[in-house]
Order: sequence, then C-alpha cells, then structure tokens
Amino acid sequence: MVFKPSIPKGTRDFGPMVMSRRNYIFDVIRTMFKRYGYMPIETPAMENLSTLLGKYGDEGDKLLFRILNSGDFLKGIDPGESLVADKLSGRISEKGLRYDLTVPFARYIVQNRHEITFPFKRYQIQPVWRADRPQKGRYREFYQCDADVIGSDSLLNEAELVSLVDDVFGELNINVEVKINNRKILSGIAEYIGHPDKLIPITIAIDKLDKIGLEEVTKELVDKGIPHAAIQKLQPVLFMEGNSREKLGKLSSLLDDSSIGRKGIEETNELFDYLDQMKLNLNWDLDLTLARGLNYYTGAIIEVEAVDVQIGSICGGGRYDDLTGVFGLEGISGIGISFGADRIYDVMMEKNLFPQKTYHTTQILFLNFGKKESAYCLPYLQELRMKNLSAELYPDADKIRKQLKYADNKQIPIVVMAGEKEIQQQLFSVKWMQSGDQKEIPSTGLIQVLEHYYQSINDIDIKL
Amino acid sequence: MVFKPSIPKGTRDFGPMVMSRRNYIFDVIRTMFKRYGYMPIETPAMENLSTLLGKYGDEGDKLLFRILNSGDFLKGIDPGESLVADKLSGRISEKGLRYDLTVPFARYIVQNRHEITFPFKRYQIQPVWRADRPQKGRYREFYQCDADVIGSDSLLNEAELVSLVDDVFGELNINVEVKINNRKILSGIAEYIGHPDKLIPITIAIDKLDKIGLEEVTKELVDKGIPHAAIQKLQPVLFMEGNSREKLGKLSSLLDDSSIGRKGIEETNELFDYLDQMKLNLNWDLDLTLARGLNYYTGAIIEVEAVDVQIGSICGGGRYDDLTGVFGLEGISGIGISFGADRIYDVMMEKNLFPQKTYHTTQILFLNFGKKESAYCLPYLQELRMKNLSAELYPDADKIRKQLKYADNKQIPIVVMAGEKEIQQQLFSVKWMQSGDQKEIPSTGLIQVLEHYYQSINDIDIKL
Repeated sequence: MVFKPSIPKGTRDFGPMVMSRRNYIFDVIRTMFKRYGYMPIETPAMENLSTLLGKYGDEGDKLLFRILNSGDFLKGIDPGESLVADKLSGRISEKGLRYDLTVPFARYIVQNRHEITFPFKRYQIQPVWRADRPQKGRYREFYQCDADVIGSDSLLNEAELVSLVDDVFGELNINVEVKINNRKILSGIAEYIGHPDKLIPITIAIDKLDKIGLEEVTKELVDKGIPHAAIQKLQPVLFMEGNSREKLGKLSSLLDDSSIGRKGIEETNELFDYLDQMKLNLNWDLDLTLARGLNYYTGAIIEVEAVDVQIGSICGGGRYDDLTGVFGLEGISGIGISFGADRIYDVMMEKNLFPQKTYHTTQILFLNFGKKESAYCLPYLQELRMKNLSAELYPDADKIRKQLKYADNKQIPIVVMAGEKEIQQQLFSVKWMQSGDQKEIPSTGLIQVLEHYYQSINDIDIKL
Repeated sequence: MVFKPSIPKGTRDFGPMVMSRRNYIFDVIRTMFKRYGYMPIETPAMENLSTLLGKYGDEGDKLLFRILNSGDFLKGIDPGESLVADKLSGRISEKGLRYDLTVPFARYIVQNRHEITFPFKRYQIQPVWRADRPQKGRYREFYQCDADVIGSDSLLNEAELVSLVDDVFGELNINVEVKINNRKILSGIAEYIGHPDKLIPITIAIDKLDKIGLEEVTKELVDKGIPHAAIQKLQPVLFMEGNSREKLGKLSSLLDDSSIGRKGIEETNELFDYLDQMKLNLNWDLDLTLARGLNYYTGAIIEVEAVDVQIGSICGGGRYDDLTGVFGLEGISGIGISFGADRIYDVMMEKNLFPQKTYHTTQILFLNFGKKESAYCLPYLQELRMKNLSAELYPDADKIRKQLKYADNKQIPIVVMAGEKEIQQQLFSVKWMQSGDQKEIPSTGLIQVLEHYYQSINDIDIKL
C-alpha cells in the first residue's frame, strides 16, 4: 500500500512562486511599519490556555486549537482509569495555538511592562490558527500583520494609521477606500433614540439598510424590541446625506444631548482635521454603518476596502481602551490595525498587480558539460555570487536539452556555457534566454558583462 | 486575584532588540540561500500525525506536540463513556506540530512531484516544535533554516553546501571550521575490521577517543561485542595522522577490499577536488569521528563548528539517498544543510559580532508641543517617510523630558522640535541626540538636511 501524503484541511503549502508574491506583500507592509516607527516583536505559537480562554467569546473558545500535554500527557491518569470525556480537555491540555496576535500582545505588554517605554509602537507578522470550518478564502492557518500603539490617547495615532494604510496600499498599487466610524457616535445615536442598551442591534440594522431596505430594517428593529417611535427618530440618521463633515455637522445637532455622542463627534472632527493636513491619496469617508468589532473597540473604527473588487474588508482596526485590563494592567489605551495578507493577495491576483520582479530566481545558470568543464566554471560562479548575483552550476552533466528546460522552468534569464572549444579559447558562450541572443565573451570579461547587465536592469541583489 | 500571565516553558517572546539581531541572522542566511539558487517554500505548522509518526524513532514520536481534534474532538465519544487512557491519543488527535523541516519537505515533494522540476533546490526558514525537556539553549519552539537539493547525485552539490557555509559565516563574521566525513567510509571501516553490522557503536567509540582514551574505548567496544583482534585492526584508523588528503590516502590502502569503503574514499576525494577549486576562506578537514545523523545520511556528512566557542555544532547536514521513499517515491537522492539560528545567535553575542546597524529604529522623532505645533510638523513628517526615512511624531503633548526619554530609550538619533518661535520664523530646531549638537534649520531645507545626513551614513531605507 502506498501512503498518499496530504496536509490537514484548511492549511496550505506555499511553493516558490506563491512565496515570492506573499513575501512581496509582507515586505511592503513591514517596510511601512518600520517607516512609521513600529518595532517588531514575536510571541510563541503556543500560549497557555489560561491566556487564551475567555478572550474571544464562547464561539472563539471552541475555535482554539488545543495541544495535548507533551509526551507524558497521560501522567497521573492510570492506564485503565475511566475518564469522563467532557472533563478530559482540562486534564490533558494546558496549551493552545494563538488565535490572533492581539491577546498575545496584551499578555506580552503586561509581562514586560517594566521594560517597555510607552507609548509602545509594535508590529507583529506571524501566523494564527483557528479551528474554523475551512471554505474558500478561509483557512485554519493564516498570517496576520498587525501594528498597534499602546499607551497614548492622542488622535494623531488614529490619523497615522490611516496614513499608513495610504502608504501600504499606494505601494502595493491597490486602489482603496477607508471607512471611518466611532463607537462613541454609535452610542450617542442609541442614546438619542432612547435605547442606549440596543447599540449593537441598531448598528447591525443600519448596516443592512442598503441591502434590505427601510421596511425590512424597521421590522428587524421591532423584533429586537425597539418601538416604532424610536425607529422614527432614527430615520434622519439613516438617510443622512452629504460629505463626511456635513454628516458630522448634522449629527452634532441631533446628538447634542448625549455627552458620549458629542465626544465621538469631537474626536472624529479632530481626526478629520489631521487627515486633511496629511493630504492622503486615498479617499476616506464617515460610515455610520461600520460596526466592526463593536464589543471590542471604544473609539475610532477603521475599515479598508478595495475599490472595484468584491472581497470585503482587506484591512481594519480601531481604538480599544482596555486591552490589558484582563491581564491585570488597567487603564492602558491603544489603537491597532491589521492587514489581511490573504485577501490582499487575492485582490492583487485579480487585478494583476504583482510587479514582474517579485519572483526572485537564479540570475545566471552555468550548464554542466562534465567535470573538467565544471572546474573551469567554478571560480566564475563563485565570483558572481560575491558580486551579489544569484548563480548556479547545473549539478549533473545531463543532456543539454534537460538543462535548458531546467533554466526555462525556473525562469532563469541567462545561461552560460563552456565546452571544449570555449575552454581552449578561454571564453564563455552566454545566452539570453528570452531573446535567444547568444554571445561569446572572453573569460576575463564575463563577470563585468553579467554584472553590468544586471545593474542596467537594476536587479543586483540588495547589499547586506 | 490578579492573573499573572506567562508563556509555556521552553518558549520565548522576542522583543525589538532581539528581533533585530535574529532578523539579521535570518536575512544573511536567506540572502545566501537565494544567491545559490535555492527557492523558498513554506509548509503548515500542523501536519497529519500519519505524516510525522515513525519518522523520528520512538523517542521522536514521544516528542511530537499533538493537537486535539478541533472543536468537536469529543465527537463520537459519549459524554459518560469510559475511555481507556492509553488509547486516547489516537482517538482524539490526528494532527501534530512539525518536528523538523525535513519530513514536511519530503511530504511536499511527493505531493507536488508533478509540478516540481528536478533537481529542486529549496530553502525553508520556519519554526519547529519539540516536547523536549527545556534547558539552557534548548527550546520547545525554535527556528530551523534549511537548504536542500533533491534529485541530483552530483558531488558538486556537496561542495556547494560547503561554499554556502563559507559565505554565510563569512558574512556573519564567525570564524568556523568544517568537518567532513562520509558514511560509506565508516561502513568500509566496519567491514575492514570484520564487523559491518557494528558501524554505529564503532563510530561512537571512535568519537570518544579524545575524551576517554584508548583503554576506555577498547572496553566499550568489547562490551558491544567486538573482539580484541578487530579492535587491534581498528588502531591504525584511530591514530591516523596527516592532512585530509594524507588520511584519505592511508584509508585507501586499508579499505582496499571494501567496495563501499572505496566508493566513500572516491566521493570524498572528488569533493575535496571541488573544494580546492573553490578557494574557500574557511578551513575544512576530514573527521572520521563525525557521526551526525548516522542512521539517516548515506554519503557525505558535514558539520560546522565555531572556532574558539564551546557550543558544539552550529550548522550541519549531509547526503541522504531515500528521503521520500517513506512516502512512496523511491530513488530520489538529496543533500541538505541546516543552520542553527539560536546557537549562531549565542556565538555572535559571545563574540560581540552583531554590527551596530542591526537595530532598526526610528530615525527622526518630531517632539509634540501641542496641536498647532503638530499640524506644522505633519507635512514634513509625511515627506520624510516618502523619502524612505523612518520618522514619527510623538503622539501626546507630554513633558519634553518624557519625550526625550522616549527618544533615548528607543535610540532615536535625531529629534526635531518646533515651538512657537520656530513656527513664527518658519524653521525647525534639530538635535543630534548622541553629540548633543543642535541646529536651527529653515523649514524649506529640513528634508534635504535630514535626507543628506542619512545618505552620508548610508542609512536610507532600502527602496522597495
């Protein structure tokens, strides 16, 4: 019986081509994170279950991958002992794979609070694991790319995240729109209609207005226990028109009696002032239907969508006021943003946005005509590498056709050949694969010609 | 009760400073992998247990971290059902965390064999997990950095790996020595003394000669069932002197009757020929006591040690002839090498080898004197970032002392200030933190001055 290997459902292998594209995305994001002064950290894949449990709701707890206590997980349990299955998990597992980067980051801050200088700007690009039902575009292992500022209330941080979004997607060439909301405004609206406790159903209903229309929305709100009079009061909010500032102005008079509502409007106006000063390339807009992570965020809520691509949010974040409270460190406000690498990848594929040069492959292949010929090539191979060029010598003296096919498959642009004639005359035959051009070059000039060629197309490997 | 957060034993958090150093090591290794034509792949953290089990011996199986079947791991087990504990694992866990990068790579090759062009040169830099007892320098989660060539028998591959080692450690500035052996020579020696089945105890005993002396080694060999006459025959091998080629010459006459021994000597001679042609900087030597991964490697065995640091092997690898056989794909030979990032890190710390520039931090900090002043700074902040400089505006109008302390702690070299006076006169006060130098610079010249400064110390962020 032949064993047919496979990988767990919801997980993926990444081959060289896909890796190059993914790394391109990660590199752009990382470069911009650094440019904004975020510093890298990494946390372990495994966290104690006591760190993870209860942080993502009941549903989240179920989606944690739990790790069996290592090696001796049955220690203390007699081989013949009867175990009641539903108590098993607590006895045999104490660790889980991280579900996101936010909770481990909160844990990190609390654990290292005496070494950290606040405000602390950190970024983190690592995989997370969720035992979700796998489906198109949803994986059980996927990367998150997060940047957060901890320990500063300033709205400059909010503005800066929008600017960061502008730079990342500008560099990736993705046309995006940023939607901005503020949890405090939503609270103000709920207060204004007299149902501050119904914040979440109200927001969800508003969100559906475009899709299902006023009648259905009204029905839904009634179902949630909101009386018709209150829904009536909500209508000016639902059908508010104008640009972001105009909407804020109208809200300002509507929510005049709600102190939290006024605070939300004030914050949002200040954020908009900064954004105006920053002269961003992207379009941003107030969107009162934006309810992302509502039981989590306390101030600004930000969501990024690709224009002309039906894929939902590709990046989002917001302000949270008590991230570390659950670990015993109260009163530390923060704001963060998370880039969804998989969806960004999908957008770039759909719009054909990956630059040609993303795929880093060998630049020069020496063909192998045998041992003597290889020995002739070796010093040149070594010297090219010292010049930061990527080069290889085909390891076996296979048929030339097979070797050229190797170059072709690996998309190697230049092939260098040295047979008996070349050695005798101390030269190399150099072939440009795409054009088919072939030249004889004296061995003393080989390095210079190849170096010059790659310099001219600006493709010399980055100097360390 | 305050919950005191911690991480599982044997795992680590990496803060910004340590991350910078680790990334420096990974970047050097990755750059060299690419320069030699290795292509990146990544495989999932979780593999099916059927892929992992039985590949690392009984001991290895015990060291696998097993993952409880997700969410519904008790499905099919009645809540009150009695379970016999020692049969539990098979029923409730089907996945494990990868133990190394080699077995997942073999699985990858078999699964993707129709898309792969051979010889296939791949590199992979990812964490692995082992439920080992944690101790100094041994972790339960750690990175491996592997490069392998699959589908080529040529000894050029062996030579190339030694050259790669030379380049990596040359760039890292670590003084290393490469020890080379060949499994076939060891087999030849075992044949020569008439005990081909005792290959492993013989090699282990030879390995101990330096530490415990001939008498103890002899005793150990006798204990393993090797008679005195055979041990007598072994002595010329044990006390062989001379350089690598001389030793090979002596072995050649000793092992003349062993065809596998002759083959090993022939391979090693050819490898040495290539290494001579490559003019490496490092020293390499034949070391018959090198027994690394003996039940795994079939040809060359390579091990790298740092000179003057007592830390053991920091890199190693070898030739294996049937990596993918266990997954049903026979007869594919390969050779690989693995760099131990943690030990390399320790060596570099001990020898103080990390370059000053490893730590990437913010290059320019604008101090915050209030909202109006921030607004004055914002466009310049944005423009610096567009010039690939890393810059931030301190988000809160805190006391200047606190802001300067932030710059200090984050090791930010340049601080830019704009108070009322500066705004009035349209200039900035720029302070170089290390020297304490301070200059007033007209706002129209600020970008140029800062850009020029960072160009002059060659520290402009790499253009994407």
